[in-house]
Formats: sequence, structure tokens, C-alpha cells
Amino acid sequence: MPEPLIRTNYEVMFFDTDAGGVVHNLAYLRIIEVARTRLGAELGLPVKEMAERGEFSVVLRTEVDYRQPARLGDHLVVESWLEKVERLRFWLGFRILRPGDTSLLVTCRQRMANMKIPENRPLRPPVNWRAQFPDAFSKEGAPSSHE
Amino acid sequence: MPEPLIRTNYEVMFFDTDAGGVVHNLAYLRIIEVARTRLGAELGLPVKEMAERGEFSVVLRTEVDYRQPARLGDHLVVESWLEKVERLRFWLGFRILRPGDTSLLVTCRQRMANMKIPENRPLRPPVNWRAQFPDAFSKEGAPSSHE
Amino acid sequence: MPEPLIRTNYEVMFFDTDAGGVVHNLAYLRIIEVARTRLGAELGLPVKEMAERGEFSVVLRTEVDYRQPARLGDHLVVESWLEKVERLRFWLGFRILRPGDTSLLVTCRQRMANMKIPENRPLRPPVNWRAQFPDAFSKEGAPSSHE
Amino acid sequence: MPEPLIRTNYEVMFFDTDAGGVVHNLAYLRIIEVARTRLGAELGLPVKEMAERGEFSVVLRTEVDYRQPARLGDHLVVESWLEKVERLRFWLGFRILRPGDTSLLVTCRQRMANMKIPENRPLRPPVNWRAQFPDAFSKEGAPSSHE
Repeated sequence: MPEPLIRTNYEVMFFDTDAGGVVHNLAYLRIIEVARTRLGAELGLPVKEMAERGEFSVVLRTEVDYRQPARLGDHLVVESWLEKVERLRFWLGFRILRPGDTSLLVTCRQRMANMKIPENRPLRPPVNWRAQFPDAFSKEGAPSSHE
Repeated sequence: MPEPLIRTNYEVMFFDTDAGGVVHNLAYLRIIEVARTRLGAELGLPVKEMAERGEFSVVLRTEVDYRQPARLGDHLVVESWLEKVERLRFWLGFRILRPGDTSLLVTCRQRMANMKIPENRPLRPPVNWRAQFPDAFSKEGAPSSHE
Repeated sequence: MPEPLIRTNYEVMFFDTDAGGVVHNLAYLRIIEVARTRLGAELGLPVKEMAERGEFSVVLRTEVDYRQPARLGDHLVVESWLEKVERLRFWLGFRILRPGDTSLLVTCRQRMANMKIPENRPLRPPVNWRAQFPDAFSKEGAPSSHE
Repeated sequence: MPEPLIRTNYEVMFFDTDAGGVVHNLAYLRIIEVARTRLGAELGLPVKEMAERGEFSVVLRTEVDYRQPARLGDHLVVESWLEKVERLRFWLGFRILRPGDTSLLVTCRQRMANMKIPENRPLRPPVNWRAQFPDAFSKEGAPSSHE
């Protein structure tokens, strides 16, 4: 599995759970949104400064696998990384863990583009990524499955 | 209790519930947001057309009382009305019922202002409200409690 | 593209949108949750009755492609269908359209299992699906891409 | 204004904002939910341990005043405290600040009860509160307004 670039912590709240007694599938994706915002800042894509320039990191595709459920009060860790860079798009990877029992709960990847709005024009990924994240450029074809 | 101007229906989804087995307190307020959007259209405040003019109906205050819990799959009715009109502000009222057993689940009122953005200038309520909703103008002081 | 089994309507609310001026990626998935609940009822999987028996339709995997953005006040249609049935799992398909301009906004599929909780035992899909939805049984391998 | 018992931090995410360019009124209440969970732990009411005993801190009433809007990327602070203790109920207080400009954005108070479920029996507040928070016991009648 890829080495994460950042780790973020999350404590499961009542509003994350549902009447089935576990965390609702949508809640994991909201938790991942927070991780992605932090990852973006680390990658040179800070949302506030970008928005002031009319630039937005847009989600094109999400793939998410729900493996084990989290429960109320669990302390989770989200690991996040840059997985693969294409000419005008890039993939981010995420996994949600419960450190206490080393469970892998959720894996996710998202295909992104940086867009100039309102022109709706795609922006090239930051040039310094090639030097900083060479592994994300060497891969051929679609990113490998998380399986 | 005031006569509602509109009624909207809602079926409780898994994502509305929490691990306590009942609807989460935030979910009722999202249900009320939908009802308020429909009520606004009925009152001459359609959100899309207003937003195109840079006008927004802004919530200044919410008071909500949680009386009985709703559960997964319940079919709820939200009743909504214009409660009181002030010079630059107005109060809307809401109650959530479960018709099957006539339970009153939630009562809520919200103080609103129509604002011109980005000037941040309050707009007078629509002039035709006085003829259409005379009861909302006759009241003195704060709106009466829902108790 | 597959023929939908049901169509559900949705009007975009303020809380669905974000500061980029379009519907947030998570909001489409909440809209799809509502469609899936209705689709489940049509397929013989009503959430309330199932939950009373300790049975839950669980999302194992979501794939979602965001193609065109929806905006405040848009009237959307969600089309939903049973895509493919495996021995203990099944795939549901969804697409979100804006009928006014025939835009295809979002496509999504979800791999599901019906589970008996707390035993955590997978349940076979309903036996009558084979007669009702023969197309969902004839497919080999993974479901075809939405591309 | 009352002295807060705890302070929690929050960075505004895209999903907190709406097409009006500011944080949506519901998002502040979700932010307050997180603060209340932390405040509960501090007050001897940890949600996970309580839920395992069939005990839940239930919101009976929320009053919230929206004073100034927060925006994408803002770093907010939520201050939280125990405001007033009644025989079987208690009030919590919250305010949301943006430290950079000392703006008071939102004030909120919530009337709570600790309930034993499924018996639906109210529980007395923790006995040690009287010694720890004498100010919350000395007040007569309803809590004073935040104005």
C-alpha cells in the first residue's frame, strides 16, 4: 500500500452514525473531504487562496470501498496521498483506519482536476510535483486497485 | 396554533437517524430547510430568482423544540406559515407532525431578513404581504410561544 | 444505457450547494440515497420492515462520476435500476439528469449486500428477482462501465 | 459573557458553505455538535460510555443567533460551557468566534436532558456538578438572553 503523505484524526460523532448502529456511508466521505482539504494544502492547493483566484479542485470521480464499520466514539485516522498524476488530472488516495485494532475500514480514491472558473478551463497540476512526488508520475494506465 | 400556509411531506431516511435509533436533531432542521424553501416560493421569495438578483433570505435566529422523536421510515408532514412581519424582518413558523398518530414532534420558528448581497443591505418584506397575511401584521412584540 | 426501474425528483436546495456556486459532490450522493431507498422499496427491500427484522441493505462500494454541475434551484431527476445480481451481492445503477437541457450530470453504481445484523450474515437476494429482472442475471463479470 | 469551559477549533470546509458564499446556517450547528460532544466528555457525560449503558444526552431545545457570517477557510473557535442546571435538565452555552478579527459569529444555547433508553426515564444531572459549577446552580428562572 502507498505511503501516506499526511494523517488526520477524527472522532466519530452521533451525527455520523445511523439507526443501524454504525457510521453511515456518506459520513466517511465527509471525513475524507476534510482529509483532502488538508492534503491539498500540503500539495500546494490551499482552497481559500485558490477560491480567491477563481480556482477550484474539482472531484471528477470517487471510488470508495466500505470494508469494516466504524462506531460511535471511535477514534479514526485518515491517511491521504497523491497517487498518480496525469496531464490535466490527478488521483488522490485515502484509507481510514481504527488504530486501536489496526482495522482497515474504508479505502477511497478520487480523480481530480484543478479548474479555472468561470472559464471552466482545466489547469496543469503544480510543476513542482514532478520533483516532489516522482512515484506518482511513473505509473502507467489507471491506478492499481486497492484490493 | 396558527393555520399553516403549506404542507410538505418527508419520509425519514437512514441518514436522518443516529445510533440512538431516532432522527438526529440536525436532520429535523434540514427537513425544515426544504419546507422553508417551498414556503418562500409561496410567499413570493423564490431562492433561484432571488439569488440571480443577489438577494438572499437569511436566517437570523432559530428556535426549535424537540418534543417526540421520529424514526426510520416515518412519513412526516411539515406545516409552515408566515408568523409575524416586522419592518425589515419576519418570523416563519414550522411544526413537524407524524399524521399516523397525530404526534407533534418538533416546533420551530425562524427570524429572517431578505438581504441584498454584497451591499449587505436589508430589503423590505414584499408589500403585498400586508393584504395577503393581515394576521402576521397585527401582532405586538415577540411572537407568542409555541407552548 | 439501462432502462431505469424508477424515477425520483429532486429540487436543489441551498444546503446542497457550496461557495463554488454548484452542488457539492457529497450532496449528489445524499440525493442518490433517497433514490436508493425508493428503489429498494420497489425491489422488495423496504428499509423500515427490514430494520425491524434486523436486516440491512449495506453499501459495499460506490463508484460515482461527476460530469456536469447542478445549480441552486435546478429540478433534477434520478433514474435508478437493478444492474447486476451476484450470488450474495448486487449492483444498483443511478444517473442524475436535468430534464430541461437533457444534461447527464452524474452516474453512479453501488455494490450492495443484504445483511442480517448482529450475526453479520449475508442474505441471498430475493428469489423473485430472477423472474422479474432476468437481464440483471445474464451479465458476466463486473458490470460494464458507464462510459 | 460566561467564561467558557472548553475551546475547540474548526476550519471551514467547502461543504460548510453554500452558493451565497458563506457558511450555511445548518453547518454552524454541526460544528456546535462537535463542541458539545467534547464539552460532554469534560462534564462527565462521554457519549460512547453512556450509549453502552443505554444513556443519551438529548437536545430538548436549541436557540441560535446568526450574527456575522463565516467563510471558506476561516479558522473558527467554539467556546462552550455549562450555563444552568435544573432538577432534571440543564442548559449548555456556545459561541463561535473568528479570532483573527475578534468577530462574534454565532451564539447558541441548548436545553438538554440525560435519558435512560428505552425506558425513556430522565436521569438527574451528575451530583458533582454542584461543587464544580456552583454558578450554574445559582441562577433563577430561564437563562438570560445572549443579547
